[in-house]
Amino acid sequence: MADKSTEDIMRRLKSVEGHVRGIGRMLEEGAYCVDVVNQIVAVQRALKKVSTLVLDRHLHSCVTRAIQGDDAQSRERVLEELLEVFEANARA
Amino acid sequence: MADKSTEDIMRRLKSVEGHVRGIGRMLEEGAYCVDVVNQIVAVQRALKKVSTLVLDRHLHSCVTRAIQGDDAQSRERVLEELLEVFEANARA
Amino acid sequence: MADKSTEDIMRRLKSVEGHVRGIGRMLEEGAYCVDVVNQIVAVQRALKKVSTLVLDRHLHSCVTRAIQGDDAQSRERVLEELLEVFEANARA
Amino acid sequence: MADKSTEDIMRRLKSVEGHVRGIGRMLEEGAYCVDVVNQIVAVQRALKKVSTLVLDRHLHSCVTRAIQGDDAQSRERVLEELLEVFEANARA
Repeated sequence: MADKSTEDIMRRLKSVEGHVRGIGRMLEEGAYCVDVVNQIVAVQRALKKVSTLVLDRHLHSCVTRAIQGDDAQSRERVLEELLEVFEANARA
Repeated sequence: MADKSTEDIMRRLKSVEGHVRGIGRMLEEGAYCVDVVNQIVAVQRALKKVSTLVLDRHLHSCVTRAIQGDDAQSRERVLEELLEVFEANARA
Repeated sequence: MADKSTEDIMRRLKSVEGHVRGIGRMLEEGAYCVDVVNQIVAVQRALKKVSTLVLDRHLHSCVTRAIQGDDAQSRERVLEELLEVFEANARA
Repeated sequence: MADKSTEDIMRRLKSVEGHVRGIGRMLEEGAYCVDVVNQIVAVQRALKKVSTLVLDRHLHSCVTRAIQGDDAQSRERVLEELLEVFEANARA
């Protein structure tokens, strides 16, 4: 798979991990609740960006391959999965 | 395009329209705010379902056609659009 | 209740209704799927704004009254409702 | 602040941190993109639960205190913040 894109995604996940740890420290130090919720919102946005990057890769690899292929069932499965991901992500 | 799917989507949009009108009436009659917000949430869910149906059609028509086609630029454009829709919908 | 805020909310709901009707017309006229989804996203944002306005009113009326009141059960109920609305809206 | 609730929230944040680390491993091991996105969705839901718990605490402490207090400006500020959190969370 695209190595540069994996590196970018890994780096973002590391950053999310550190961010979540930081929110834990904020809580322990008695930070203001509203500030904590706003930091959680920031983490959620960072995770949405990661989802988009993973999906980008998926579209350019598996989805493209399946749709260009001869297997009607594979084509259908890949599109159904895409719709499920679309729905799940919209309600995450 | 698939007539049956258009009919289904049109029917759902009509229902959303009536639902929104009903929320207006609730407000005029002084309904409890929490009930009003919950009705708005119900409308938003109905609209997400419509988005999914429209996207389903899009995947089975334009996206499939572009990816199976020979034009690399069309393929790329259709995938980029898909990602933008994915992001916009997740933040709707 | 605050008449000016009711008027504003009603006006926004009317606009949402017209917007939804317009999306129906787009579909009938065979509009591009991505454009349709983007219009649905716009409606969902408009509805979120309405939710916020209704909640604003709720906070300044029922919530404030209940919390300033002597009834511990009413205070608790109003806060629990607020959390439920917060959760429902976040997953709408 | 409520120690038991802090402990619960801290435990959930630790679990989110481990979950995010696990997603990194999935990626390194070349997991299927759709599975990765679904795990990110699960993390986002866990974070929403944390937001709700933090907000619960906020409502029962700062918000209740400010609204019961005599300072009209503090009352107004606490309600405005609540609306902003409500909006930010809904678009997270």
